[in-house]
Amino acid sequence: MNFDHAGIATDDADDLAELYADLFDTPVVHEERFDGMDVRFLDCGDGYFELLEPREEGTIARYLDRNGPGIHHLALATGDIGSALDRMDERGVELIDEEPRPGAWGHDVAFLHPKSTGGILVELVEH
Amino acid sequence: MNFDHAGIATDDADDLAELYADLFDTPVVHEERFDGMDVRFLDCGDGYFELLEPREEGTIARYLDRNGPGIHHLALATGDIGSALDRMDERGVELIDEEPRPGAWGHDVAFLHPKSTGGILVELVEH
Repeated sequence: MNFDHAGIATDDADDLAELYADLFDTPVVHEERFDGMDVRFLDCGDGYFELLEPREEGTIARYLDRNGPGIHHLALATGDIGSALDRMDERGVELIDEEPRPGAWGHDVAFLHPKSTGGILVELVEH
Repeated sequence: MNFDHAGIATDDADDLAELYADLFDTPVVHEERFDGMDVRFLDCGDGYFELLEPREEGTIARYLDRNGPGIHHLALATGDIGSALDRMDERGVELIDEEPRPGAWGHDVAFLHPKSTGGILVELVEH
């Protein structure tokens, strides 16, 4: 699998996107309101930063309350997320999403539980 | 700048490397003892995961004590880290490293303070 993106929890996605574009030359290539969040994808050449600003209660709002802004998850791209999930399940990985579900940018996604992946929240994504 | 790697703090770099190779097909492409840490770079196709296991007191040991295993930093690659640092300085970014210093894998690196980058610890790296 290939690196796809790092998910970043932030209080202000547009402000952070503007800062990163200026500092790191990582332009916004996709933006949408998704699942109660303002989502901005920044192009990092190899993969993306996915900025996540909660607009209502939910996982990212709770993350920010607990931790403040930070790196929320890492996403790996696969060409067949269904088969990948089956493989995870066979290996005893605890799945947060037992089936792929619609994610931001129209992708199919599924999260793996950090207890099975060394404390890191890992997302599988199929474009 | 392009995504280079995600730095991951772990209690057992070899164990996590083996798990990720099995789950995600991300082989170890470089390993070394560096700056009091066992460091393992995993090839993620586009960029790397840098696993950091402290072998003595230091930043990562303190991070683990405070937070447990997790995503410690994001690194962006630049072809000229000196000029990049000058540009950060001009824009008022607080620099943890005012000059590039030797990092793992023989790269030149410099860290930016999270207070200037939206709460994210960002590393600049020149291969």
